[in-house]
Order: sequence, then C-alpha cells, then structure tokens
Amino acid sequence: MFFEKAEKLSLADVLQLASFENADALKEQAGGIFFTDVKALTEAGSEDIAFHHNEKYKSQITDCRAGACIVHPKHKDLLPQNVLPLLTSTPQRAFAAISQAFYPEEIHGTQELIHPTAVIHPTAELGKGTRVGHHVYIGPYVRIGELCRIDAGAVIVHTHMGAKCHVYTGARIGQAGFGFAMDEKGPLNIPQIGRVIIGNQVDIGANTTIDRGSLRDTVIGDGTRIDNLVQIGHNVQIGKGCIIVSQVGIAGSTILEDYVALGGQVGVSGHLHLKKGAQAAAKSGIMRDIEPGQTVGGIPAVPIRQWHQQNSKLGQLAKTRRVQGDKREG
Amino acid sequence: MFFEKAEKLSLADVLQLASFENADALKEQAGGIFFTDVKALTEAGSEDIAFHHNEKYKSQITDCRAGACIVHPKHKDLLPQNVLPLLTSTPQRAFAAISQAFYPEEIHGTQELIHPTAVIHPTAELGKGTRVGHHVYIGPYVRIGELCRIDAGAVIVHTHMGAKCHVYTGARIGQAGFGFAMDEKGPLNIPQIGRVIIGNQVDIGANTTIDRGSLRDTVIGDGTRIDNLVQIGHNVQIGKGCIIVSQVGIAGSTILEDYVALGGQVGVSGHLHLKKGAQAAAKSGIMRDIEPGQTVGGIPAVPIRQWHQQNSKLGQLAKTRRVQGDKREG
Amino acid sequence: MFFEKAEKLSLADVLQLASFENADALKEQAGGIFFTDVKALTEAGSEDIAFHHNEKYKSQITDCRAGACIVHPKHKDLLPQNVLPLLTSTPQRAFAAISQAFYPEEIHGTQELIHPTAVIHPTAELGKGTRVGHHVYIGPYVRIGELCRIDAGAVIVHTHMGAKCHVYTGARIGQAGFGFAMDEKGPLNIPQIGRVIIGNQVDIGANTTIDRGSLRDTVIGDGTRIDNLVQIGHNVQIGKGCIIVSQVGIAGSTILEDYVALGGQVGVSGHLHLKKGAQAAAKSGIMRDIEPGQTVGGIPAVPIRQWHQQNSKLGQLAKTRRVQGDKREG
Repeated sequence: MFFEKAEKLSLADVLQLASFENADALKEQAGGIFFTDVKALTEAGSEDIAFHHNEKYKSQITDCRAGACIVHPKHKDLLPQNVLPLLTSTPQRAFAAISQAFYPEEIHGTQELIHPTAVIHPTAELGKGTRVGHHVYIGPYVRIGELCRIDAGAVIVHTHMGAKCHVYTGARIGQAGFGFAMDEKGPLNIPQIGRVIIGNQVDIGANTTIDRGSLRDTVIGDGTRIDNLVQIGHNVQIGKGCIIVSQVGIAGSTILEDYVALGGQVGVSGHLHLKKGAQAAAKSGIMRDIEPGQTVGGIPAVPIRQWHQQNSKLGQLAKTRRVQGDKREG
Repeated sequence: MFFEKAEKLSLADVLQLASFENADALKEQAGGIFFTDVKALTEAGSEDIAFHHNEKYKSQITDCRAGACIVHPKHKDLLPQNVLPLLTSTPQRAFAAISQAFYPEEIHGTQELIHPTAVIHPTAELGKGTRVGHHVYIGPYVRIGELCRIDAGAVIVHTHMGAKCHVYTGARIGQAGFGFAMDEKGPLNIPQIGRVIIGNQVDIGANTTIDRGSLRDTVIGDGTRIDNLVQIGHNVQIGKGCIIVSQVGIAGSTILEDYVALGGQVGVSGHLHLKKGAQAAAKSGIMRDIEPGQTVGGIPAVPIRQWHQQNSKLGQLAKTRRVQGDKREG
Repeated sequence: MFFEKAEKLSLADVLQLASFENADALKEQAGGIFFTDVKALTEAGSEDIAFHHNEKYKSQITDCRAGACIVHPKHKDLLPQNVLPLLTSTPQRAFAAISQAFYPEEIHGTQELIHPTAVIHPTAELGKGTRVGHHVYIGPYVRIGELCRIDAGAVIVHTHMGAKCHVYTGARIGQAGFGFAMDEKGPLNIPQIGRVIIGNQVDIGANTTIDRGSLRDTVIGDGTRIDNLVQIGHNVQIGKGCIIVSQVGIAGSTILEDYVALGGQVGVSGHLHLKKGAQAAAKSGIMRDIEPGQTVGGIPAVPIRQWHQQNSKLGQLAKTRRVQGDKREG
C-alpha cells in the first residue's frame, strides 16, 4: 500500500483536532466511539469519517453511510440519523486536520534526508530535517530552511527559502528571467542579478518555473500555495497566503498582495498591482490593477459581474439576425 | 543518422499492412514494385510512399512525384497518372502502419532496459520489456506493466500503470494534488491518499503533470493520448481513447468519458462531466458539462456553432459607432 | 553572494560599451568618473548606473539618485540635475551591454564543462567550451555547437544545435511529436522521423518542450528567444529573432517568419503562416495567417485595433438592458 495510516482515532481524539460547534454534545457520547479512516462521502462506512464541502454533491449527504460526517451546520438536516454530524463552518480545515492525524506522513520512501543522486553545492546551506529527493540540483549559496522537502528532479539556484516549504518534482527556481534587448542587431541578454526569496510554508508545484529577479528580487510570501506548471516572471512579488492555480502565468515585476487567488490558466501582465484579496476566475487575462477584494473574469479581465453580463449579452447577440447600430466610418 | 530504417518494402508487403479499397487491382501489379522510404508529399520521389491527409495541402497532391500515395478516394483524381494511388478512407492510419514497418524502432540508444542513473525503489514492480531512461525516479510500490517506456527525467510515484505505455521525458505522475484549507490561519494541507491508475497503451507527454487522487484515484483509460505540458488534477477520471492536446488543464474531480478530445490550452473546471465523444476547440474554457458528441468553443465554452455566431456578431459590433439598447439602471 | 561583479567601470569604459547621443559632451568630463554597479532606478546611488525604459515608471526618474542614468532623449529633462544622462533611443540595449560588463559571468558554479552526473551519448558531438549541467541527458548523434550552455535536468535528443545557445533547466528537445491515428480500433502512433534544427544564439526556457519533426524537421532560427513552459509542436519552423513568451503553444507545421513576437499564453493553430514581424497580444488564439508587421489580439485573434473595439463594445453591451436585433429563426 502507498500510505501508512494510524490504526484508529477515538471521537475524543477527533474533538481535539478541530473545533466543532456541537463539540459539547459530542463529548458526552465520546466514550467508546472509534474511527479507522477518512473516506470520500460515497465510500465511507460506519467506521470512517467523511466530509461534505461542495454544494454540488448535496445528494451524496442524504445517502451517506459514514460513521461521522464533517458538515456545515446549514446542511446538517440532510445527514441520515445514524451518521454522527461534526458541525463546523470550515469543514475543509477540520477534515485536513483529521486526515493529517490519520496519515501523519503520507509519503513513503523519503526517510533518507538527502538522496545520494542529489547534487548539493558545497556552499549551499540546508536546515535541519530538510529532505532532498532524487536527481535534485541545489546551486551555490542557496539557503533552505528547516523541515523543507525538495522532490525528485527539482532545481534550485540563486534562492533563499524559509522553513517547511515543499518544492514538488521538476520545479525550477532561480533561473535567469526573460530579459534581453532585441532589435535588428539580434538579442543582447541583460544579466539577471536578483534572487528568489521564498518565505515559510510555501508549496511550489510540479514543473513550475520561478525566475530570479533582474535587478531586484522575486519574492514569494509565507503560506502561499503554487500549483503545477505555473510561470512566475522576474521581480514578481507575491504576498502571504496567495493561491496560484495550475498553469497561471505572471509576467515580470507584477505585485500580488496577501491572499490573492488566481484560477487555473490565468495570465497576468507585467508591472501590475493586484491588491489584498483580489481574485480572478480561471483563464482570465489581467491587464489592469485589481482593487482589494475585487473579483475579475474575462480577457481582458473586468469585474466578475460585468463579465457575466458580457457573456449573457453575447449569447443573446448570437441569436439575433444582425447587429443593429450606426456604421462606423473607420 | 537518427533513425534506423528497413531497407525496402514490396508493394505486396504494403498491401498486408493496411486495407486499401483498390487492393485487388494493386495485387495484380504488385510483383517487382518496391519502396524504400516514407516521405512528405512535397519531398517524396519515385521510390517513396507519401500520404495526403490535410485538405489545406490539396495542391501538393497534383505536384506529387512519389512512387505511391495514400489518399482518400475522393481525392484520387488529383494524383498525377504515374503515382500509384493507395485508396483508403483512413489515410492517417494506413500511413501509420506503413511508417511503423519502415521504422520499427524509431529511437536509438534505448537498447538497455534500465539506465544505471535511473532510481527504482526496490518495492516497485516493472513488467517484462519495460525500458527506463536516464535520471528517472520510480517510487515505492509503483507497478508498471510490460513493454512500457519511461523516458529520461520522468518521475512516477503512487501509480499503477498498464502495458505498452509511453511516459515522455520530464512527466510527473502521482505527486500530491493541490488540496488544502486556506484561511486567515494559513494553509493546512489535506493528505492526498489516492493513487494514479493508468490503463494500457497510454502516452503521457513531456513535462506533463498528473496528480494522484485525494480520497479516490485519478484514472486514465486505455489508449488515451496526452500531449506535453498538460495538467491533470486530483481525482480526474479520463476514459478510453481520449485526446488531450498540449497545455490543457483539467481541474480536480472532473470526468471525461471515452473518446473525448480537447484542443490545445483548453481549461476544464473541476467536478464536471464531459460525456462520450465530447470535443472542445483549442483555448476553450469549459465551465459546464458537455453532452455526448457535442463540440464546444469559447470562454465560457458554448456549442461551437453558437461560438462562431458570437464571434461573427462581435466582429460586426466592433464596426458600429455605438451599441444600441436601453441603459441598465445598475 | 550569488554574482561576481567587476570592481568598477570608468565613464570612459561606459562610453565604449554603447553609443550615446551625448557621448562627445560626456567624453570631456569622463576623467575621474567611476561607477561600481548597475541598480534599479529606485535603488541606485551616486556610484551606480540606472536605466529607465518603462513609461509607467516616469515618476521614478524625477526621484533618481543614481550617478548616471540611461534614458531616452525625450525624457532627459525629467532627470535631476546631478544625475549624468546617458542618452540613447535604445536604453535597454545600452543597459544590457553595460550590465554584461559589470557581470561578465553572472552564474556561479558552472566552471566545470561537463558535470559528472550528465549522461552524454558517445555518438553525440559537443563544441568547444560548451557546458553541460547536472543530470542532463544528451542522446545519440546529437550535435551541439561551441559555447553553448545546457542547464541541469535538460534532455536533448534528435537535435542539431548551433553555437552560443542556452538551454534552460528542464527543457525537453527532440522527443516525438503528438502524431497518431485514432479511431475505434485505438491509437496507432506515426513514427516521428524528423529532427530539431536550432540555429545560433538561441535561448530555450525552463521546462519548455520542442518536439522533433514528423517527416520534415522542426526548425528554430538564429537569435530567437523562447521563454519557460512553451510548447512547440512537430514541424514548426521559427525564423530569426523571434520572441516567444512563456506558456505559448504552437501547433504542428506552423511557420513563423523572422522577428515574430508572441505574448504570454498565446496559442497558435497548426499549419498557419505568421509573416515577418507579426505580433500577437498575450493570450491570443491565432486561427489564421498573420500578415507582415500586423499585430493581433483576442480569441480568435483579429487585428489589434478591432480587438480593442470589440472589448469596448462588449463593455457597453453589458450595460444595456437587453440586446436589440431581429430574432434569428435558427
């Protein structure tokens, strides 16, 4: 089997791991109730804990046969009588905590700290407990904090990284950015003499590329999560707790403040400023700054409500026989 | 030279390799006719076999100087008199079969089964005849079937794979998906405890990433072809004979039934259902289920005819002086 | 520190490196003026050379405290009196030349030519001074010219490459393209028997994938710059001095003439012809040929002015209460 699992957790253990709204009531019956695994809503049996977090699967709650189910209070009445409800307004976080207790280390085979096929430059510094996978290359003067995990085939150069980061397989961090002068004389590269500065608890996805800065640094803040095949250009500054979904591209010198979230395949032009909590729907093409907390969509991206209106109007327009309006002279 | 080629094939050999509509007529003249190579339509000479499959290059048929040309019956009259027509309604398949006979093994240098720089965990199981390239990493408990080919730099963990699969260079299969709870307390990862289950005769392109499932498995069906730089999220289920072109991204838990085809750079939202034979034009952004056999285009994707109408109307609209219509209050 | 720097350059040295419009005037005061580094406009002090190239940052000139600043003549009046102006209509090229003089080799740790973990097939030929990084694989019969640099984890097969090329980490060059016949009998691969032919001074970005040709070659011209995570399909022909920004995808058999520039995440259909100097805005979806010097935008891509008009009209349309026009019967 791929994963090592804790044998079982008692209901009392579970109540320690996350705060549930009905914890007091549950404590009274906690004695003697045990769970042996976490499972998907449709697959959980009487000894498993399931969770519900997607409105789309509402019907799956009513058929749930789990021993207990983590669920938002607004959905608790959908659960069958014999399923213990674990009520919380943040079911995903509660499920994460309980899953981690069942699967304290979900990865086999990485017991050894540094795989012998990894090449780590003698001037690089690695923190205590940091693990380095197969065929990794870590370049000169790189610093990596404690308890990081660098997966097979990753390459890290010109980078300072904090603690508890996870660099997935094949990620490329710190190579020169796309900087040159091009004209009829041909290309002339501009030396890229900045670094990549990564905070703590940052995850960087498989085959993602993060270029180092040109004159300043490329920066990734604490707790940010970057998915697979993402491109981050030179001098980009990303704040804390940002979510960058797969295949996003962020062009050079753009700033993302804290808690910005970009859907899959979003593209962001260079030299922009995406303010705190800004969000973009998947596939958006962002060509302007985004205000705090604003959500945008479309190419070029506009406020999300306007994008929905555009799409709706475009659908209507497609059904008309011809477009009305004065002819332009141009 | 990069490729080893069979010395020659007789017309009789060629007629064994694919079924041509005019095979009977050809058999009569088969004696003494030989071919030495397959070549592009514009480059083939009297000893070569060419093929025509793209309407765009119709003019190239009329100038063809090949010994024989694989061609759809509807185009046979375009061929010059001295070119032997090989008539079939599936020219691409016939050409594939004949090319394979000329180039039975198009790849040099992979005679050795397992390159010594590859790292294969002692608990992994590899089928007979499976070849593993340079700097590959195959993790614990992985199972790979017979006659597979795993190219340089690929990484495979938490995966069961069938026979005759080809994993291209730098593909990443089985890493944890993008699963976490994020809020003001920071990110909390959800252990990803599913696997990747891959059928037979699946090709997975260079630098493509396939995440393992979270609670269930990520699944890829028999004969599916996945191009380069594709992202497949956790729990995605892909049927048989699907075609996933380069840079497509499929978000978590989406289902593709058999024979779905997605053009380059298509994005598919999570938790969707693309039914049998559904197709999407390049760059589509799919946000809803697609019915069997339906083709869609656009962002958000709509039926392809509607997308063309939208584009046409949008072009007309751009030429008008101002948009007519009642002002909205909002 | 990550980068080795020349100790200092005199103003006389600087005037040798690029041609400035006010060079004669500067020569008179060149004696005794020295600079110790290049820095960003906002960070440069009295011993540094800065440069200004982006209209957006005009206010940064007025606050500049650099010793000298490379600037377009039209902006010279914005510079404070005590900053020496270095006037040129190509500030980026001048800055590139001066930066290269300060940082003649911006990369540490690559002194050794061939890292011992690289695998180079005995039949491959490497030019003088070509450096090969960690865990690289170079396949049989590959030819690479002089003074190239192949970074960690790259894989190159079936390729001829000129001189002074730079292949970034994780790039995959020369693997088989996406060619097969697919029908109800399943997929049948078409042997890909072309090569990749790369000119001189070509840069190929991190994790980029370039497929070899099917029957003809995939070709990349001199001086072309390809960013990270780009996909180039089989038989694509790219001219000289092209700029291909990150995450672009170019489908099979498309031709780019010289000096074509594609913005980030652009997609180009197969079998198209993008003529000399054609340009496409980021995220464009190109489905037709582009005329020389023409700039396009949108999906499907249209002339850029038309795209802006479409976007503007679509914005107006979204604000109307309902779309006017005759109902279509269909």
